Order: sequence, then C-alpha cells, then structure tokens
Amino acid sequence: MRIPATEYHDRLTRLQASVAASDVDACLLASRESIFYLTGVSYEPLERPFFLLVRPSGPLRLLAPLMERVHLQANTPHAVVSTYREYPAPPGEGWPEQLAALLGDCARLAIEPSLPQEIADGLQGREAHALPLVENLRCIKSPAEIAMLRLAARYADRAVEQVIRASYYGVAEIELFAQGRTVLTEIMREVGFDALTTTVLAGAWPAPESAQPHSVPTIADRLTEGPHIALCLDRVFGYAAECERTYFTAPPSSDARGAFAAMTEARRRAYTLLRPGVPCAEVDAAATDFLRVEGYGDYLLHRTGHGFGLGNHERPWLAAGSPETLQANMVVSNEPGIYLPGVGGVRHSDTILITADGYETLTRYPVDLAALTVLARKPLTRLQGALVRRAVGLRGLLS
Amino acid sequence: MRIPATEYHDRLTRLQASVAASDVDACLLASRESIFYLTGVSYEPLERPFFLLVRPSGPLRLLAPLMERVHLQANTPHAVVSTYREYPAPPGEGWPEQLAALLGDCARLAIEPSLPQEIADGLQGREAHALPLVENLRCIKSPAEIAMLRLAARYADRAVEQVIRASYYGVAEIELFAQGRTVLTEIMREVGFDALTTTVLAGAWPAPESAQPHSVPTIADRLTEGPHIALCLDRVFGYAAECERTYFTAPPSSDARGAFAAMTEARRRAYTLLRPGVPCAEVDAAATDFLRVEGYGDYLLHRTGHGFGLGNHERPWLAAGSPETLQANMVVSNEPGIYLPGVGGVRHSDTILITADGYETLTRYPVDLAALTVLARKPLTRLQGALVRRAVGLRGLLS
Repeated sequence: MRIPATEYHDRLTRLQASVAASDVDACLLASRESIFYLTGVSYEPLERPFFLLVRPSGPLRLLAPLMERVHLQANTPHAVVSTYREYPAPPGEGWPEQLAALLGDCARLAIEPSLPQEIADGLQGREAHALPLVENLRCIKSPAEIAMLRLAARYADRAVEQVIRASYYGVAEIELFAQGRTVLTEIMREVGFDALTTTVLAGAWPAPESAQPHSVPTIADRLTEGPHIALCLDRVFGYAAECERTYFTAPPSSDARGAFAAMTEARRRAYTLLRPGVPCAEVDAAATDFLRVEGYGDYLLHRTGHGFGLGNHERPWLAAGSPETLQANMVVSNEPGIYLPGVGGVRHSDTILITADGYETLTRYPVDLAALTVLARKPLTRLQGALVRRAVGLRGLLS
Repeated sequence: MRIPATEYHDRLTRLQASVAASDVDACLLASRESIFYLTGVSYEPLERPFFLLVRPSGPLRLLAPLMERVHLQANTPHAVVSTYREYPAPPGEGWPEQLAALLGDCARLAIEPSLPQEIADGLQGREAHALPLVENLRCIKSPAEIAMLRLAARYADRAVEQVIRASYYGVAEIELFAQGRTVLTEIMREVGFDALTTTVLAGAWPAPESAQPHSVPTIADRLTEGPHIALCLDRVFGYAAECERTYFTAPPSSDARGAFAAMTEARRRAYTLLRPGVPCAEVDAAATDFLRVEGYGDYLLHRTGHGFGLGNHERPWLAAGSPETLQANMVVSNEPGIYLPGVGGVRHSDTILITADGYETLTRYPVDLAALTVLARKPLTRLQGALVRRAVGLRGLLS
C-alpha cells in the first residue's frame, strides 16, 4: 500500500543523474516535500531546518536536529545522518556550522526554488542556482505513486458523495464539514494515519459565495438554492487528490443551468486533449476559448487544471503560460470554472491519470445535473428560505 | 472574539515605524503568517504568491492572484489591491511583471527570512536584506491576541483531558486521535471554523516510542505501561496553544517515577524565572543544568521552550543559543524533557503568558503523578500485555 523501500533508491539514482547533468557539485534540499520524496519521513521544518545533500554519486546525506536522529537513522538505513544540537544553539553547535561541514568542498550548488532566504544567506559565498530538479522527477508518477493517488481519489469520491448525501435546502455548513472527519476516520481504519501527511478537507462552498472560489464559508452558512460546490481535497500518506462537484438543493435557475451546460462542454473539450504529447496550454485554451465564445469571458478566474502528487497543486499546470507538454503518468485536474456574481460558482474537478494513449479518471462521482440536484428532502418555501438567510446574516453581525 | 479591525491599522503603523528605522525603502512580505497578521485573510500561497508591500507611510499594498480580488478587497478596505492573472501566465501577465510594478522605485528592500529563493531571484538587482521585522512585532501580544491564545489554550486543556479520560491499558491510538476531532467540533460550534487557521492535533505518544518525541505512532499502536505523552497542539483562528502531559496506564516503574520527579523539578526551576527581564537562555539553563546534575544529560533532546502566536513554534526560544530576554505579553512553553530509550519520554508542556511581574499559565490541566496515573479500568495481566504488543508487531509486519 505504501511506497516500497527500493523506490527511494531509484529516486535517489535519478536525482543523482540530474545533478550530474546540471553542472553543479551537489543539490541541497530542505523542503517538506523533498524530505518526504527522498526518505519517506514526514517532517515539518518550522524553525528547525532539515537538509538533504545529493552529490552525483555516493549516499544521501542528511543533516537534522539531534532529536530526530534515532528514528531518522532507523527509517533511512542507507543515508549518512549528521545532526545539530537545537535551534537556536550556542555558537559552533547550530545548523549553520553543521551545514558548512555538510557542504564541504561543494562550490556550485543546485538549491530548491522554495529554499528560504535565511538559508540561502548561510551558503557563504558558494554559487547557488535555484533549479527544480526534484520537481522535475515528481511530475512523472511511478506505479506505486499511482496506486497511492488512486487510493486518495477513492476517498475524495467518498467524501463528496457523503457531503452531497448530507445536503438539503437549509443545511448548515457544520453538518457538511463533519463529513470530512467521517472519511478521515475511514482512512485511519482502512489505511492508517500520519498527522503530517494524511488530511481531509471536505465541505461545500454555498451559493452565492461559491462565486468566490477562495473565500471561506463560515460554519453557520446555510445552503439555499445553489449552485454550491461540494469538494474534497485529501492526502493519504502524502499523496493528494481532489473531487469537486457543482450541485443544487433546489431546481437550478436558467442562468445556473446555462453555466452548468457550458462548463460541462468546456470540460469535454479539455478531456479530448488529455493524452501524451499535447501542450498543457492547448488544453487550457480548448476550455477557456470555448467559454469566452459562449460569453463567459468576464466570469473566468483561473486556469483549467493543475497536477497532483505530494502537493495538492503541482506541475504540470494546464494554464495559458505553461511551457509543458503532457506525458504518460502525469496526474492532473480538469476544472474550468464560471463564477457569476450574485449567483454562484460552477466547477467540477477530477483527479486524472494521463495514460499511454489518453487518460483515466481516478475520481468518478457522477457529473450530470440530474444526479447533482438534491430534492430528496422537502425544500423550504421561498419565505422560509429568506428567513434562514436573514437569521444567518444577523448571527454574522452579532459574532 | 476575533481581532478587532482597528488592530490591523495599529500593526501596520508599528511595522511602518520599523521600516522607517531600518534604512530601507520598503518591506516585502509573502508568508502565510504575515498575510494573516496584517490583513486577517487566511491564504495558503502554494504556487500562487501573495505579496504585501509596506512603505514607511501610505496604505498597505497587496498583489494577489485575480481569483482573490473580490473577497480580498472586501476584507481589506484600506489596502490598495492589484492582481496578476494566474500561475503560470503568458509573458506580461504573471506575478514577476506585476511585482516589478508594485516595487516601483524601491531600491533597498527588507524581505522576510522565509522568502523563497525563486521570489528573491525575481527582485532584479534590488538590494534585499532578510530582516525579521514582522517577527519582531509578533513577539509581543496585544490584548486581543492574548484573548485568542487563552481560548486556544482552553481547548488544548479540554483535548488533553479527553485523551487521558479515553485512555486505558491496551487502548489503540485511533481511539485517542478521535478525541481531537471531538474538540474540533466543539471549536466549530462555539467559536467558528476556517480550515486554514483552525486545527486540532491531539493524541498520545505511547511508551516506549515516546522516547522519540518526533517519531509518529501508528494508528494501531496500543498503550501499555507508560510513560505516554498526551498532547494537543491546536490553532483557533490562527492562534496556537499546546498542552502536554506525561501519564501512565499502569503503575509507573521506578525509572519512570524518577524521571517524572526530575522533570517536575526542572520545570519548577524554569517557572521561577519566568518574568520580564530574564534572559531566555537563563531559563533554559535553569532546567537543563539541573537535569544534567541529576544524571539525565545523555537523555535530553531539546530546549526548554518556545513562543506561541500565529505559529505553534515561534520566538522567543527558551534555548541555550537565544539572545533574547523575556518581556511582558510574550507567550511561551515550559517543557524540559527526558527521553529514556526503551522506557519512554517524560515531558509536560503548558502555554504561558508572561505578565508584568511573573507569569500566568493559560493551560491548567493537573500535573501531578496521582492525577496522571489512570487505573480506572482493570489493567491486563503482564501476559495479556505481551500478547497485545506481539499482535501489534505482527500487524506492522503484514501491512
């Protein structure tokens, strides 16, 4: 179920080949994702940095706080582990001095684009180039990684199903957020748990706030007409997936119905291009050009998709400015969105594997309007709906 | 309950005074914490950076992705908001070009120590100095921040109480982790919720793995003798607290009892120094020097404490290498620990406010051995305990 130990050796070997090809003496890494990708150890750096040094050959070298030594050496038996005392430490015992020892005679370094400035300032005259060497490797998923992403996608589907099943006209957000916790408990039981790498965010963005994809609904918000967006972003032992569905808790208005149909067609056009060899920017253009022609040009807020892996968002980007081309075993979303002020947002998203000759959707919750219109419980009258909204508004003023 | 709007104005004014005193033209910020500190907006940058520019006078200037514009302007009415299209974007429409416009004629910049290298590389010849200007302000808490920290501390207490009440000889970790979700639901109901800034991590590090404070127990691990460490690290609308307690589900061994007594005395010695004007390194020395004299020098893995605020770990550090001095309205932990291989870890931690003439503990769960020895349910026999441990071991091998 997890990544096999031999794969860490393969990752290191491939990274060493990139280092050798990059005209540098070594690659210095310090991000949570790179630590996890190369060692399988989950670690949140905060103020205590954790360094990995990769030379073109030889073992992986790790520099971590003393308190990590025993479990780190047990989990990475082939790495050479050194430690520093603590942060901060008296002169001579902190990470800057130990980092200098780790780097030794390396004069030219590849560093991660995300490396914090305070660490870059500690490289003391060495030539440092921000190069995405690990990010390049992470774009193409191994069979074991695809198995993990498939698993994460299954739970994303399950959470969206539960959010939609728990929904009715007037339901409060707190009831929908609670569904994520139920799915997390299922992951714990069925797969296991690591607080740093296993997470579930599920819920629904209610109309009309769903027109702002990154505004955050409050726990007291209630669902009235729709379009709402049910979503689950999850990570299972590091690997991320998402499923998102536009849905309704009352019969959709003609504006919402029109946007839903346009979004569906934009997605279909993007899907027809999902195969190795197609430029990512072309996939984005296929969806967004169609939406512009349909008159939604003023209501587009974001690109068509992004990659998944150890990040919920990572390369490749299905976006106008992307220089990349799809390759087999990339994993991406397809999620053109239309955001109508005062009405709501309309967007589906899936987690999708690029295969040798096309694609396979890893999330599979139904996408059609009939399945996504929930009238199972008797809706409130229009007057009752207005009272619910007013009550929510008053509560907002009082809190 | 939340931070009043006027406080954001005060924070900006104080930061502007620091900028003016730092011989730079402006301060450029891009971290999640600085965005939240200066605007109250929760934002996870990922690949889409969000910039704040603070000049010695004038309004706060924000540069964010287009999709954030509407809710950002609504939440920060006094800021000047500009946007870039998306990441990545076609030439001319991405963040690098808009950042150049934002920076304008600023030649000398203060940047955050955490600024990623790829952003620092985009400053195009401007002089940039990593200065902790926002971190300096964050060290001293306002009355509204103290109220939030007090609230977070109350829920940390509550979670530790629930973890300990749910514990018995043989209990599985999954039952204890579940307590955190119960407390998160209470926070949702009683305070509210924002997925990016309201989190609860609760559980217990079981003996003997508790001897590795940063190893992560699996969900199938079971508690046998102790010493275990019950803990809750939480954040309530951004503000963090922690409560940690060493506890037992069987009568403690004499080794564990000795370490518990030494840890209690080390904490007492540190507490006597918690008041304005005392160097942080002296507090650390009071605890750790005592533990060394008592013969625990080989079993110490970390400093005595750290600050709280928007970070679960932040300045000031109660550590040997800290140059800082305690001041009123700092908030810190006091948590000297002893880690005995094969036995377990012994550590309590509290969230503590430094007051005008001393300190006030914001977490208050009992600390004495009697309260922390849970024999309410009949313990298994020694043979049954060995069988539980063996069953866990077999499951680990099979998974």
